[in-house]
Amino acid sequence: MTYTQPKQMHLGVVLSPTTAHVAGWRHPDAISNAGATFEQLRQIVDDASRAKFDFAFLADELCAPDATDEILSRDPVVYQFEPLTLMSALAVTTKEIGLVATQTTTYNEPYHIARKLASIDNLSGGRCGWNVVTSYVPAEARNFNLSEHVTYENRYERAREFCEVTAGLWDSWTDDAFVLDKESGRYFDPERIRRLNHEGKHFKVAGPLNVVRSPQGHPVIVQAGSSEHGLDLAADVAEMVFTAQRNLDGAVAFNKGLRERAERRGRDANSFRVIAGVYPVIGGTMEEAKRKYSELQDLIHSEIGLARLSQLLDFDVTNLPLDGPLPDNIPVTNAYRSRQELIINMAREGNMTLRELYKEVMSAYGHRIVIGTPETVADSLQEWHAAGASDGFMIMPAFLPTGLTDFVDGVVPELRKRDLFRTEYEGNTLRSHLGIARPDVPSGDPALV
Amino acid sequence: MTYTQPKQMHLGVVLSPTTAHVAGWRHPDAISNAGATFEQLRQIVDDASRAKFDFAFLADELCAPDATDEILSRDPVVYQFEPLTLMSALAVTTKEIGLVATQTTTYNEPYHIARKLASIDNLSGGRCGWNVVTSYVPAEARNFNLSEHVTYENRYERAREFCEVTAGLWDSWTDDAFVLDKESGRYFDPERIRRLNHEGKHFKVAGPLNVVRSPQGHPVIVQAGSSEHGLDLAADVAEMVFTAQRNLDGAVAFNKGLRERAERRGRDANSFRVIAGVYPVIGGTMEEAKRKYSELQDLIHSEIGLARLSQLLDFDVTNLPLDGPLPDNIPVTNAYRSRQELIINMAREGNMTLRELYKEVMSAYGHRIVIGTPETVADSLQEWHAAGASDGFMIMPAFLPTGLTDFVDGVVPELRKRDLFRTEYEGNTLRSHLGIARPDVPSGDPALV
Repeated sequence: MTYTQPKQMHLGVVLSPTTAHVAGWRHPDAISNAGATFEQLRQIVDDASRAKFDFAFLADELCAPDATDEILSRDPVVYQFEPLTLMSALAVTTKEIGLVATQTTTYNEPYHIARKLASIDNLSGGRCGWNVVTSYVPAEARNFNLSEHVTYENRYERAREFCEVTAGLWDSWTDDAFVLDKESGRYFDPERIRRLNHEGKHFKVAGPLNVVRSPQGHPVIVQAGSSEHGLDLAADVAEMVFTAQRNLDGAVAFNKGLRERAERRGRDANSFRVIAGVYPVIGGTMEEAKRKYSELQDLIHSEIGLARLSQLLDFDVTNLPLDGPLPDNIPVTNAYRSRQELIINMAREGNMTLRELYKEVMSAYGHRIVIGTPETVADSLQEWHAAGASDGFMIMPAFLPTGLTDFVDGVVPELRKRDLFRTEYEGNTLRSHLGIARPDVPSGDPALV
Repeated sequence: MTYTQPKQMHLGVVLSPTTAHVAGWRHPDAISNAGATFEQLRQIVDDASRAKFDFAFLADELCAPDATDEILSRDPVVYQFEPLTLMSALAVTTKEIGLVATQTTTYNEPYHIARKLASIDNLSGGRCGWNVVTSYVPAEARNFNLSEHVTYENRYERAREFCEVTAGLWDSWTDDAFVLDKESGRYFDPERIRRLNHEGKHFKVAGPLNVVRSPQGHPVIVQAGSSEHGLDLAADVAEMVFTAQRNLDGAVAFNKGLRERAERRGRDANSFRVIAGVYPVIGGTMEEAKRKYSELQDLIHSEIGLARLSQLLDFDVTNLPLDGPLPDNIPVTNAYRSRQELIINMAREGNMTLRELYKEVMSAYGHRIVIGTPETVADSLQEWHAAGASDGFMIMPAFLPTGLTDFVDGVVPELRKRDLFRTEYEGNTLRSHLGIARPDVPSGDPALV
C-alpha cells in the first residue's frame, strides 16, 4: 500500500449541541446553554482557530431524541442552532479554521445541499466541509412525512447517487468562467458552463448550480459510516473519515483496512485523512482528572442513561435492572449498525452492568476516553499517531468552554514540543490544512460523458 | 374597515443577485460582482442599517434562468449566494436591520425551513423574515426530480399547509420552557413542550422542532403572491405583503382590497404591512436622472431582453420583430399569473413595441420606476404614502453600491425633513421595526386541538 501518514497530526473539535457529554451542562464550570449561544460558540471556535486546529465539526440530527417528555427534559440536545445556518455565521466571524457540518442525504435534495455548501465555501473563502450521513435515527422519518425509517440499503444507494449529483453541480462552472466583461456584456463565457443533466434512480437534476464555483472547488467530503456500505462509500468519496475507535489495535486495523479498501476500489490510498474521536478529561494531576471524570459520570441521570442506551441499541432496556447485564438477544436492525455492534461488544468485553454501560457510552458515545494530565494525554495521542492509528483526532469536549480550553492550553503546547502539531497555518482553506488536493473541473461536457 | 396606516413609512432594500437591473452590472459605476462578494453585500446592508431601514430582502430562484448558454451568459443572476446562508452570515455582522429571505414551499420540507429560519431568528436576535413563495419558474422543477412544474392549485394548497406546519413547529416550546436547572438535572420543563403531530394532505410532521423558540416567536411572514390564491394566502398568513404596483390608483385599490379580504376571512386588517416595490433613478437634476436611466436601458442587450420577456410571459417572443407589438394571443399558463397579466396590460396601455416593452420590464421587473432628484423622488413616495397606497417601500437598486447610497444620502434626509421616516430604531427586532405583534404560543396541546 502506498499510504504515507503526515508527520504532524490534524486536530478538530466537535461542537455538539451544548456538550459532547449528556450531563456536561450540569457541571459547575459549564455554561449550560453554550451550544445555543452564538457568542459562546464564536469564542470557542476562535479559541480553536488561535490554536491552529484544522476544523470545527457540527453534528446534527433532524429530530429531538425519541423519548418521553420526562426523559427528553434531561437532555440538552434539543436547544441548538441548525448547523448550516450556524456554519454560515461562523464562516464570516472566523478567518482560518475549517468548518464541517453534518447533512443527511436521506431527507435532503442534492440541489439544496450543493448550493448551500458552495455558498458557505464562498462565504468562508474555502473552509467548508460536509459530513455526509444517511440518518440512523428512525425518529427523523416522522418529521419528513414517513412512518417508517428508510431502509439501510436504500439509504446508502441514495447517498452514493446524492454525492455524484452534488459533485456534478459543483462543477457547473469552470474556475475561470466568469469574465464580467462590461464592454461586451458577457457575464460569463458560454463555453465554460457545464450543465449536469443527471438522470438516475433517485435523482433527476438538470443544473447548472446557480452559485459560482467555490474556492475549494468542492467542499471537503467527510464520512463516518463504518458499516459495510458506509466503508465502501467512505473508500470511494471521503476526503476525511471520522471514526469511533476505543483501542489501538482496532484503530490501526481500521485505518489500514480502509486504505486497502480504497485501493481495491481504484482510489489512491492517500486521498483521505482518518480522524479518530477523542474525549479528553484533563487535570493538573491524574487524580484530579479521574475525580473530574467520575463527577461527570455521576451527573448522568439513570432515566436518560437507559433511554439513550435504548436509542443507540434500537432496543428497549429502560425497564431492565440497572445493576444487571445487557441481554443476549439484541437484534441487528435498520438503525446505526456499527454503533450497535460497538456497544454490544463493549458490554460483553467489559462484563458491564447496564449502569456501567450507559455511563461509559453516554460519556463519549462510543468514542475513546483519555483521562490524565496534559503530558499523559499528549503521550496517548502520540502513541496512537506513531502506531498509524489515524492522521489526527477530533476533540470532543465534555462541556463548554473549559472542555476545549483545557486541551488547547495544556495538550497543544505538549504536542508542539514534540513537533506533532503545527504552530501556524500554511494556507487558508480546509483542503490546505488537511493536505488534500483541490478537485479540477473534469474536461468535456458532463451530459456527453 | 378598521385599518390605520402608520404615520411614518417603512423602507426595505432588495439584494437581488448583483443588481435589480439586468444590465446594471455593466454601468461604469457598478461593482460587477457585488451580489456575490460578501464584503460588498455586508457594506450595503450596513449602509441600509445606518439609514435605519426596516429590512434587507433576498430574492431567490432554485435554478438558472431557462435560456441558452449564449443568452444566459449575459445575465448576472447565476453568480450569487444561497439566501439562507447569506442571511445567516449577515445576521451576525449586523445588529439592527431586519433580514428577509425568499424560500419556496414547493421544493422544500417544512421541518428544514422552520428549523433554519428559527435558527437565524436566534442568530440575529429576532430580525428574521421569510418571504413565502410557491415557485413560478418552471425550470426549478428540473432540479428537483420533476419534468413538469407543479400545478398552480397544488402549489398554493401545499403552501398553505406548509405555513400551518412551520407555525406549529415554531410553537414547539413555550418561551419559558428552558429552565437549565443544574441541580435537578432538568434542562427544560416537560410541561412546556408542545409536540405538533401534524397529519395533513401534503405533510406528516411529528415535531418538536429541535431549536429553542426564537426571539420573535415566529419569523415575520412575507408574501408577494397577487393571483387569487396568492391574495387569499397573503390575507390569511402574511405580516408583510410585497407588491408590484405601477400606478397610484391601482396601488390604493390593492392595499384596500387586501385588507378587506383579510377582514372577510376573519383577520384583523391591521395585522400586516403592505410594501410596494420602487426602482429609483436619482440625479442631481431631473435631466441627469433621465440621462442615467436611458444609459442603463441602452445597456440591455436585445437577446437577453426578448429572452427574459419570454420567460416572464411564459411565451416565446424571441423570434418576433423588435419594433413590432406584443401578439394578441398570449395564453394564461401555469407560470406566475399576475406578473403575466401585468406585462400584457403594460404593453397594451402603452402601445409599446417589444423593444420598448422589454426595456420597461427588464428595468424593474414590473415594479414602479421613479426617476428624479432626491426631492422629487421623496415627493412621489410622500404622495403614495399620503394616498394610502402602501405602508412603505422596497427600494430596488439598479446596481450596487450607488443604487442604494444615492437613495440613502439623498432621499432619506428629505423624508426625515417631512417626518416620514424614523431617525432611530425603537426596538431590536424586525417585528418591532414593522410594528407587528409577536405571536404567543397557543395554549393547549396542539395534538388535542
